[in-house]
Amino acid sequence: MVVREKILDMVIGCFKRHGAKRIDTPAFELKETLTEKYGEDSGLIYDLKDQGGELLSLRYDLTVPFARYLAMNKVKKMKRYHVGKVWRRESPTIVQGRYREFCQCDFDIAGQFDPMIPDAECLKIMCEILSGLELGDFIIKVNDRRILDGMFAVCGVPESKFHAICSSIDKLDKTSWKDVRHEMVVKKGLAPEVADRIGDYVQCHGGVSLIEQMFQDPRLCQNKQAREGLGDLKLLFEYLTLFGIAEKISFDLSLARGLDYYTGVIYEAVLLQTPAQAEESSNVGSVAAGGRYDGLVGMFDPKGYKVPCVGLSIGVERIFSIVEQRMKTFGQKIRTTETQVFVATPQKNFLHERLKLIAELWDAGIKAELLYKNNPKLLTQLHYCEDMGIPLVVIIGEQEMKEGIIKLRLVASREEVAIKRENLVAEIQKRLSES
Amino acid sequence: MVVREKILDMVIGCFKRHGAKRIDTPAFELKETLTEKYGEDSGLIYDLKDQGGELLSLRYDLTVPFARYLAMNKVKKMKRYHVGKVWRRESPTIVQGRYREFCQCDFDIAGQFDPMIPDAECLKIMCEILSGLELGDFIIKVNDRRILDGMFAVCGVPESKFHAICSSIDKLDKTSWKDVRHEMVVKKGLAPEVADRIGDYVQCHGGVSLIEQMFQDPRLCQNKQAREGLGDLKLLFEYLTLFGIAEKISFDLSLARGLDYYTGVIYEAVLLQTPAQAEESSNVGSVAAGGRYDGLVGMFDPKGYKVPCVGLSIGVERIFSIVEQRMKTFGQKIRTTETQVFVATPQKNFLHERLKLIAELWDAGIKAELLYKNNPKLLTQLHYCEDMGIPLVVIIGEQEMKEGIIKLRLVASREEVAIKRENLVAEIQKRLSES
Repeated sequence: MVVREKILDMVIGCFKRHGAKRIDTPAFELKETLTEKYGEDSGLIYDLKDQGGELLSLRYDLTVPFARYLAMNKVKKMKRYHVGKVWRRESPTIVQGRYREFCQCDFDIAGQFDPMIPDAECLKIMCEILSGLELGDFIIKVNDRRILDGMFAVCGVPESKFHAICSSIDKLDKTSWKDVRHEMVVKKGLAPEVADRIGDYVQCHGGVSLIEQMFQDPRLCQNKQAREGLGDLKLLFEYLTLFGIAEKISFDLSLARGLDYYTGVIYEAVLLQTPAQAEESSNVGSVAAGGRYDGLVGMFDPKGYKVPCVGLSIGVERIFSIVEQRMKTFGQKIRTTETQVFVATPQKNFLHERLKLIAELWDAGIKAELLYKNNPKLLTQLHYCEDMGIPLVVIIGEQEMKEGIIKLRLVASREEVAIKRENLVAEIQKRLSES
Repeated sequence: MVVREKILDMVIGCFKRHGAKRIDTPAFELKETLTEKYGEDSGLIYDLKDQGGELLSLRYDLTVPFARYLAMNKVKKMKRYHVGKVWRRESPTIVQGRYREFCQCDFDIAGQFDPMIPDAECLKIMCEILSGLELGDFIIKVNDRRILDGMFAVCGVPESKFHAICSSIDKLDKTSWKDVRHEMVVKKGLAPEVADRIGDYVQCHGGVSLIEQMFQDPRLCQNKQAREGLGDLKLLFEYLTLFGIAEKISFDLSLARGLDYYTGVIYEAVLLQTPAQAEESSNVGSVAAGGRYDGLVGMFDPKGYKVPCVGLSIGVERIFSIVEQRMKTFGQKIRTTETQVFVATPQKNFLHERLKLIAELWDAGIKAELLYKNNPKLLTQLHYCEDMGIPLVVIIGEQEMKEGIIKLRLVASREEVAIKRENLVAEIQKRLSES
């Protein structure tokens, strides 16, 4: 939990740096709100039992509830972040950081703006977070749904199969082209020569020069959608260069993103592994992803009024498991509490004094603990401090009472110093602020 | 959300000050885990639809999941806090701060310790939080389940009716004694003279002297349970005096707490209203509550191994609505973002410069925004800053570019100063640290 909190603080700090405000939506949505938004994954939604009242489901992500919120409240413009739980009916595999309940951290910009400026900011945010967390080298793959659709069209995919083929392409990060081709031809009934034409495209990835190359592609350029997508990506790369992050971004024609609601640019960040890491098979797939979804809000508006949106989601659960695994590898230990001072006594019948003293510390805002025993042994008390990593011990006994002092023990060095009783709080605050 | 975050930060800060670590449990539990833990309120539990796999329900509070967690992981000792959502099938009434989904903040101490030390700490925490939030004057009512049970026994309530009568007594904070008596006699079949005997007791409240008085009560003192409860309360008040909070605590024989799982001391904090407030009928009932539940963990352990627990829950939703209402009354406005600097231009075709500049600010950790427009009007940009309460504006135009400077505008005073381009970040950081 301590590691989780640090990672979340860092992510939230970045969202705030980019001017987002926090919002929160309920854990459940009307069942119909979630229907037909997630393509092949819709079977993973948890429904609530019909106990009277509306039919409800647990939210599957934070994007659809955000779109529903914008439409319901007729919000035309908003930059928000949301940190919350989502639920999916999966078989949990801890290795890949996939659970049935997990935390999502989303940042989204809603509103009609000039092209690609908010999109570029989303990619900047992903870079800032992944660099800030020091997870090692990473790359963000970028593509555009319109380029994908254009590619499908010029390759000869029937329009009715766009979604299905898109889902197959989406598996290319985990599955070989051979297997994906097999699925497209055998399971989804695509002509083999069409599949091969797609194969030529999806093996391309690169930077701005690849965009230029695709602009020269005679087949792809017949397609209006593809041309629009390529034009926007070119502009996007211009802004990414100004943000100083262009070298982290790869235009990748194999990136598809399974979800139905994307309409424009899409992106996904993956960690680059050293050969040693790859052998440990600590493959965690994508650690952040997102894209543009200009049609989703309109689906919830009675008049179909559209609010264009672009956003990103940080895969914090996967990041948690990477950081945890790394800490295990390096044998790092983390304190689970923040206690600064422990109140101890070597004497019997000193509970009253300890209680008075600790209340004084609490009231001064100092994080303090004692053992809930009338007469604990001194050794037990000192062991507790060493186990828990508590840096300071206040010791009070008969001798100290008589002299009007307190002993302050520094746990790390085992050094003990005498302090006047009335200076205790000030002295502790001084030491804590110095350390 | 900003107000909520501030309140939660304050509550969590207090929990950490008392040495608790954070844990998190899943939103749903096995249906059977929640069955028969909540008395008359069990009908308010949300069940998930049977989609294959285990039968699940959404958690109703954070206490039962904590007890289940301790038993499952065979934890014998733990001081933890938990901030999370819980769900209840209620008709939402916003006035009283009751919703179907709401946030709970719980602190609990599990383990076998010397009597009343952890219990006293729980009350100290409640006092620290309620004082810290400056909600106005408050009182914490304290009672003990054993005293209640003893009182029922000596008044002549049949043991089979203890739970039902306890639920009736629990309504005394909202309902008059007359109505509660009616419910006990007519609906729950209690003899009128038994009800009247209970009535004599439940109208008593006071401090240590009331405990002494009850010790002298010849009927109550025949009962072993009641004597034990009174003895513990006496010890508790001793510790509360050492903590300096005894005057905030009232021994109140009418306090019952509806939940089935309490076994010892119980408590509930209520805000004291000035006559003016009472007229506005902003009655929000209890704002924090808790008690001892020594049997709950054993119910989840296959061998029935018991782990005594005591804890508290802060009613943050009610506190949110009180603070919000007060802010409305005083017309206070709260910033929803933390943006420190806005990047503006008076010129057309300055998007590239603005993007380069803002990336520099973000990379230096400065919270910054710009408008997502190629050519926004200067007035629109400045209005945005005044609306959003952004304190600083960086202005860049042709003239500034030529001179190698930047204009820094202080939004509050509308003063503008020229700064060398290369000193911009340092200058902003200096101004932000001073303010």
